[in-house]
Amino acid sequence: MPIGVCYFPEHWPDEDWERDVVAMADAGLDYVRMAEFSWGVLEPERGSFEFEWLDRALDLIDDRGMQAVLCTPTAAPPRWLVDERPEILQQERDGTVREAGSRRHYCFSSPAYREETERVVRKLAERYADDSRVAGWQTDNEYGCHGTAYCYCDDCADAFGEWVSDRFEDAADLNEAWGTTFWSQQYDSLSDVDVPRPTPAQDHPALTLAFARFTSDAILDYNRLQTEILREHGAPFVTHNFMHLYPAIDLHEASADLDFLSWDSYPTGHVQEGEGEASADELRAGDPDLLSLNHDLYRSVGGAPFWVMEQQPGDVNWPPHSPQPGEGAMRLWAHQAVAHGADSVVYFRWRRCLEGQEQYHAGLRKADGSPDRGYDDATEAAEEFETLPDLDLPEAPVAIVHDYETLWALDGREHAPDFDYWTLLGAFYDALRARGVAVDVVSPEDDLAYDAVIAPALYTASEETADRLEEFVREGGQLLLGPRSGVADEYNKLRSAQPGPLADLVGATVEGFETVPPELPRSVESEDGDRYPIRIWAEWLARDEAAAEYIYTGEDVTGGRPAVVSNPVGDGQATYAGLWPEPDLADELVGSMLERAGIDHTERFPDGVRVSVRDGHVWLCNFTSEPVDVVLDDGEWVLGEPRVEPFDVAVAETNRLSGLSLD
Amino acid sequence: MPIGVCYFPEHWPDEDWERDVVAMADAGLDYVRMAEFSWGVLEPERGSFEFEWLDRALDLIDDRGMQAVLCTPTAAPPRWLVDERPEILQQERDGTVREAGSRRHYCFSSPAYREETERVVRKLAERYADDSRVAGWQTDNEYGCHGTAYCYCDDCADAFGEWVSDRFEDAADLNEAWGTTFWSQQYDSLSDVDVPRPTPAQDHPALTLAFARFTSDAILDYNRLQTEILREHGAPFVTHNFMHLYPAIDLHEASADLDFLSWDSYPTGHVQEGEGEASADELRAGDPDLLSLNHDLYRSVGGAPFWVMEQQPGDVNWPPHSPQPGEGAMRLWAHQAVAHGADSVVYFRWRRCLEGQEQYHAGLRKADGSPDRGYDDATEAAEEFETLPDLDLPEAPVAIVHDYETLWALDGREHAPDFDYWTLLGAFYDALRARGVAVDVVSPEDDLAYDAVIAPALYTASEETADRLEEFVREGGQLLLGPRSGVADEYNKLRSAQPGPLADLVGATVEGFETVPPELPRSVESEDGDRYPIRIWAEWLARDEAAAEYIYTGEDVTGGRPAVVSNPVGDGQATYAGLWPEPDLADELVGSMLERAGIDHTERFPDGVRVSVRDGHVWLCNFTSEPVDVVLDDGEWVLGEPRVEPFDVAVAETNRLSGLSLD
Amino acid sequence: MPIGVCYFPEHWPDEDWERDVVAMADAGLDYVRMAEFSWGVLEPERGSFEFEWLDRALDLIDDRGMQAVLCTPTAAPPRWLVDERPEILQQERDGTVREAGSRRHYCFSSPAYREETERVVRKLAERYADDSRVAGWQTDNEYGCHGTAYCYCDDCADAFGEWVSDRFEDAADLNEAWGTTFWSQQYDSLSDVDVPRPTPAQDHPALTLAFARFTSDAILDYNRLQTEILREHGAPFVTHNFMHLYPAIDLHEASADLDFLSWDSYPTGHVQEGEGEASADELRAGDPDLLSLNHDLYRSVGGAPFWVMEQQPGDVNWPPHSPQPGEGAMRLWAHQAVAHGADSVVYFRWRRCLEGQEQYHAGLRKADGSPDRGYDDATEAAEEFETLPDLDLPEAPVAIVHDYETLWALDGREHAPDFDYWTLLGAFYDALRARGVAVDVVSPEDDLAYDAVIAPALYTASEETADRLEEFVREGGQLLLGPRSGVADEYNKLRSAQPGPLADLVGATVEGFETVPPELPRSVESEDGDRYPIRIWAEWLARDEAAAEYIYTGEDVTGGRPAVVSNPVGDGQATYAGLWPEPDLADELVGSMLERAGIDHTERFPDGVRVSVRDGHVWLCNFTSEPVDVVLDDGEWVLGEPRVEPFDVAVAETNRLSGLSLD
Repeated sequence: MPIGVCYFPEHWPDEDWERDVVAMADAGLDYVRMAEFSWGVLEPERGSFEFEWLDRALDLIDDRGMQAVLCTPTAAPPRWLVDERPEILQQERDGTVREAGSRRHYCFSSPAYREETERVVRKLAERYADDSRVAGWQTDNEYGCHGTAYCYCDDCADAFGEWVSDRFEDAADLNEAWGTTFWSQQYDSLSDVDVPRPTPAQDHPALTLAFARFTSDAILDYNRLQTEILREHGAPFVTHNFMHLYPAIDLHEASADLDFLSWDSYPTGHVQEGEGEASADELRAGDPDLLSLNHDLYRSVGGAPFWVMEQQPGDVNWPPHSPQPGEGAMRLWAHQAVAHGADSVVYFRWRRCLEGQEQYHAGLRKADGSPDRGYDDATEAAEEFETLPDLDLPEAPVAIVHDYETLWALDGREHAPDFDYWTLLGAFYDALRARGVAVDVVSPEDDLAYDAVIAPALYTASEETADRLEEFVREGGQLLLGPRSGVADEYNKLRSAQPGPLADLVGATVEGFETVPPELPRSVESEDGDRYPIRIWAEWLARDEAAAEYIYTGEDVTGGRPAVVSNPVGDGQATYAGLWPEPDLADELVGSMLERAGIDHTERFPDGVRVSVRDGHVWLCNFTSEPVDVVLDDGEWVLGEPRVEPFDVAVAETNRLSGLSLD
Repeated sequence: MPIGVCYFPEHWPDEDWERDVVAMADAGLDYVRMAEFSWGVLEPERGSFEFEWLDRALDLIDDRGMQAVLCTPTAAPPRWLVDERPEILQQERDGTVREAGSRRHYCFSSPAYREETERVVRKLAERYADDSRVAGWQTDNEYGCHGTAYCYCDDCADAFGEWVSDRFEDAADLNEAWGTTFWSQQYDSLSDVDVPRPTPAQDHPALTLAFARFTSDAILDYNRLQTEILREHGAPFVTHNFMHLYPAIDLHEASADLDFLSWDSYPTGHVQEGEGEASADELRAGDPDLLSLNHDLYRSVGGAPFWVMEQQPGDVNWPPHSPQPGEGAMRLWAHQAVAHGADSVVYFRWRRCLEGQEQYHAGLRKADGSPDRGYDDATEAAEEFETLPDLDLPEAPVAIVHDYETLWALDGREHAPDFDYWTLLGAFYDALRARGVAVDVVSPEDDLAYDAVIAPALYTASEETADRLEEFVREGGQLLLGPRSGVADEYNKLRSAQPGPLADLVGATVEGFETVPPELPRSVESEDGDRYPIRIWAEWLARDEAAAEYIYTGEDVTGGRPAVVSNPVGDGQATYAGLWPEPDLADELVGSMLERAGIDHTERFPDGVRVSVRDGHVWLCNFTSEPVDVVLDDGEWVLGEPRVEPFDVAVAETNRLSGLSLD
Repeated sequence: MPIGVCYFPEHWPDEDWERDVVAMADAGLDYVRMAEFSWGVLEPERGSFEFEWLDRALDLIDDRGMQAVLCTPTAAPPRWLVDERPEILQQERDGTVREAGSRRHYCFSSPAYREETERVVRKLAERYADDSRVAGWQTDNEYGCHGTAYCYCDDCADAFGEWVSDRFEDAADLNEAWGTTFWSQQYDSLSDVDVPRPTPAQDHPALTLAFARFTSDAILDYNRLQTEILREHGAPFVTHNFMHLYPAIDLHEASADLDFLSWDSYPTGHVQEGEGEASADELRAGDPDLLSLNHDLYRSVGGAPFWVMEQQPGDVNWPPHSPQPGEGAMRLWAHQAVAHGADSVVYFRWRRCLEGQEQYHAGLRKADGSPDRGYDDATEAAEEFETLPDLDLPEAPVAIVHDYETLWALDGREHAPDFDYWTLLGAFYDALRARGVAVDVVSPEDDLAYDAVIAPALYTASEETADRLEEFVREGGQLLLGPRSGVADEYNKLRSAQPGPLADLVGATVEGFETVPPELPRSVESEDGDRYPIRIWAEWLARDEAAAEYIYTGEDVTGGRPAVVSNPVGDGQATYAGLWPEPDLADELVGSMLERAGIDHTERFPDGVRVSVRDGHVWLCNFTSEPVDVVLDDGEWVLGEPRVEPFDVAVAETNRLSGLSLD
């Protein structure tokens, strides 16, 4: 489980390089990521490639027993290219052109940019793809960063028109499928289908979903252009560094083109991106569940150990606030990543940069080259990983179903200001993690070789998905379905009753629904009379075969009506929760599911204290500023000790989660 | 007092139609509104009209003893038309074109679109205007919805230039009237007058007012184009479905072209449109005063029974939150509308639509065609209205003066973040309604055959208006004038002293004014020493003939200075309130006015509990989630009973409001 | 110390003029500012100048013993000019053209507008520059108002390209200096350097700083065009009316072209422009420290008595709220200005205007010409100033260093939502003012002939500045440096360690830093164990020669680390405070510095109560709504008395600040 770092030798005088590389090796680093954004240096003018600097850097790295991860430089086309071929630039929905002067200003669908990409990637691949100094490759950088997934230029309009034409026989076919009779939105020919433009009212939901699919496809096509060239020239591996719960790219499809998936982890930044306010502890170390949800996603979707390709090294420049991570947090993050199946953790960046837009982004080393806070953490983590045996990937007894179609189809149909797909998914995921259970994040199309499965929302669930889930339950699986499932068909047209094809499995239908404004608080009650508040979304159900597990309280519209029902099918059980649970109810729903499925788990751990299990090893990660005392009934500590200090970690060998508890 | 529903047969398979129409008839419905937004189906390509579907739907409706209300389909020009004549599209102030892909993307002033409108309306009128299956016509749909009243395209620039040229002799005349010497804004010729464009600072107030007048005129011209064709072909009636307190169209002028006015009522949506937070009860049933203000406006401006052309049937898609209406609320709304003079209440829509932008808008029936919550409410209302006799329109002893010129002239001159014209008007209206009094909403030009008149703000009051008001008072009328009256002339140039031509009538002038930030709370005191907080706006007055009724408290700038004065003139009295009253003061001002005028009224009812009187019948509407017990001294209950349950209604025959009280 | 007023005779009928001018003279006014925005009247069509009206107004003023201040009318180019030469219009960053219809729609770099400016200014200068009726000249009006400093038109792109070309040898030179290797932002030739355009991510920091410098230079060039013509024709003085802490113009450079500086003071408006909420007292009278910071800035930068060229006369139209100033506040402001070195206070405007965008802006007289609240205040102030002797300018023992480069270089690099340059500077300035000390506001390049100097932030401090500061300390000066000093070089490239060239003087370096979100409160502790909260920004220091004065509390990242250090150098001391102090700590830092420097000062006065000293006279200005009782040990009251009423002022002759205290 090696540690690496991102390095930009081109930002520093030649005489610094050797000192820098020696310090990397001293820290026990294995990988050095390079050449990202370096097009301007690699090809200062058209056709004149300069590789000498890169060769020299690769030699230095190689000499010290490390290997490079090379990046294609396409995330930052140089000015001469933009000047020559301005048609490569992106356009915003209102027509504003995104000009040169930062990065990611190119359009994924631009034929001109694809041509240029092919040219530069081929040149690099020819020279370095199978170079022994190179461990493998990263394509481009953070597709879609700065809101650049969606483009509305003429090339996109053409490409979207073609994309649509490939999927329908003619305009009548599309009009029927999309339902364009509404507001006289009929298309007269398939090639008339345009990207969304500024309109007085909302977009048609079928267009929203189709344009999201097209955009994901366009990015993946663009990426495939690069991976094919790299592979053709013998690249040992090809990956891409995706972002925190990034919504616009279907990772299930992306993984087919990559050897494994990577992501860029900025814990104290991510907690400042949501709607709510981050807590003091989160500002120091992030939210462990937000991080591990990404880890689990990139691992299980990739079907392989993932990499953290950029790991926050200290303060970062882009969130509203830039507090320092807590003492040891940079080491804690590396441990948590490894506990969830990371093969490598690469810190971004080596050295705080003197120039450009990221001056206020820390590195492992300060701007003057001396060690910064992250360097010691990284060194310590590297040493500790040496002491651990090689571990197999975590084996998850539970899967959570994550569905891009749902995410995209809901866009504009959330009908509640706080409705956020990832937050709904997180409500169930966090409850699993509070009990230490390993989780796979799977697609609705995946095989379900699990004891229990949670599908927080399957908005556009197909008949096939319903069949697969029913088979899973019939054969003994425990299934927990969340609200807003089976709502629409594949073109985002509503089904005539919810949950559509899932109704039989659930043994109930949705009789009605409403949003839950804070001014109209709502709760449900269990058979035992325990009450639990809910929020954001409430469905009430008409039971067919199902039994009521929770009913709405009060005498209001929903009062007395079933909110959660369960339906035994074959050897298993399907539970449908037509609501958005607050944490206590989520714990009840998830906890009772774990019990029914006989899945080993801990007691409910408090926020910020998390257990992660991998191949007979258990990590206790403390993301809080208070120490925690852990009791281990069965096993032994191999790193750290039962008192886990703030932002510290301990690792035990054990095969029993239920033997772990807090003192 | 019939009930109707909006139906889009073109959204459903042919085989559903008969079942749907039978269920409508079973519910006791009388009207079915159709063909709105159906241009794409009626004329799928230029010149090829398809009427067969509509004929079949009309026959089904006719067969069951119901009648259709037909709509012209101009609110949604089809794509082929936009492709052929893109000059019909609206433009935003910054030049952004509003493209096809939703609705209302056409410009009212576009000669091309007027030509197309004439063509399609004539075609429909020729075939259906005097069809016995058709009860009457609605033009277009919700003029101005989605902020589409104002357009800034070249056609509008030309049309506005002409509009201005018709109103002034030459540039010198306009420059003098508008006051363009300020900041060297002189026009060199009348045709140079342009629509407002992006500018560094605010717009000239004369331009703001002129452009608002022009816009209202342009919409009315466009509407007249349609009404004339429909009338020419024998349409039994022509109306238009206006929106909730819509500001951009002068209804006083619009009514001349229409047989009666209609509006679209979405009670739980409207309460989420304002600045403040809606209460739990309002999220369930809306604000009764907001609704009845619309009812009274559309009734008295139309001079005839109005229609609710779209009545919320359940949850709706467009507000931030979509709570379900309270139990029975859909019936309550119909009753309240009738109590205020509605001739018909038409629910929108029949069936939740599977396709398009309004999937999350309920219908009386669910998406699968089965009854939803609204269906039972509508059926019950339809049955109850059968039991009531035909009633004359409400006879209002009080009029409230509503003035579009004031609304437009104040635009950008409010000078207080919370200043909203309708909210100020509502402060006085709500106080009248809390005492059960029937209210007409009139224009400053209307005859004042009332015992009392309230003018909440007459910013641009003319000499003629002042004369009319003075005559009203002299002959015994009670007049209550609000702040910001007589401020500016017809071109929005300030008068040199306020309240301008009203000063004699009021017997006082405005010595000074200021806004009232929450950090600087202000109150007034009556002669008896009672204190009342005010908000937003404070004027202090120099008394001439008038007596001080309330003076400002405290030792601050306004302290000790008159805030409200009264002036006896002839047999009546004019009261000027130079402030924005909070509810307690509004009740005092309005209550004492009712006493002086000898107008029958109830005690002050609490928020959400409202009495409405029509032709010897009194409706007690309970918009709250608590039951209320009503005492009726004089008369008898003809519907419901003295305990009025949450969201329920009771109707009594009685001639005395003062005989009604809460237990 | 004369009083004046701004008058627009062209807005009023001829017959009013004499009455108005007589009333001005009666009030004791000396100056009448005119002709601002009057281009449309002066030159109604190209080449036809009309001066008769201005001559008549000048005669009337002259007849009554007053003098005019004439303005060039360039802030409002007339429509005919825009129609003829539309290339003069500004463009926003996204390309939106700022059209005619308000004011300030011209581009400073437009060759066409410079040509027109030269033409009209020359015409006016030829006729009036040395006219005895004219006291002096104001160029244009409020450069940059309404966000118009920055323009992105093609003329600006050309001009910026040239500006850059003048400063670098070639593209390689610029690329090296700016650090464009980052994200492949290299320029291929100097002329390629473009104004900032819409980009996906942030701008390059070197571009940000360069474009800010260019913009300031462009405005100053444009202004110089005017001053040279006016001087050439014998103008007695030339000034410009700048705005409240305006960031986009380097005043240190502007002052070279002007005889003295002026600014426009709107106390109750300025307090509504910041982030926080204004208090009730501030809404009535403004924040005295915000006002005097401007006074001190314009005085010391101009090196001469300054003018308040526009003084708020009552309610104003542009802030969110328009409360009336407290009783006497208009007089209080004039006194405070004079106490800080004003030569003249000119009220804006004479009379509330009936037309145009500023109808809701008070004048000294009401719209009908009768006296308004400000008239009495102005008259009283004029009388009182007659009783005071001629006073020399305040002699400040302390200077505060204000640096436009810091302000511009920080743009986008603040990295804390509440970070505002002026607020940081104000934290130190307010502490000085609470102790009555006179303050000069100086540039980093200025001579430091003071006992103590505070530099709140010197982000781009040069070696030269460091040398100058070291010499100042070595010779006995007390220096207090704030955080974020010596961070970057002149091209906004980070230095490799902070505080860069100031490290030796400070005897310490910055080991780390972070922002301080409210959720992570931070404090420091003195040697005596007193604790003080800080906010927004925290640096911890590695001491070299320096001693720790304050250390961070707590066990968090910064806990126990030095926050403030002091370093004796030669006969003086340098103190570095690596934090943003809350008021109590600011008082401690400033108070101890005053003690060390032996500077006469008062006790710490409460907010809103301020002492200002000028030439042996002390003003006690009460900006609060409560009276204050003042004890004067040494001296005598020459105006007012020891009890200073709300919004009142008292003046004493005394030579000892420490003899003043509150009872």
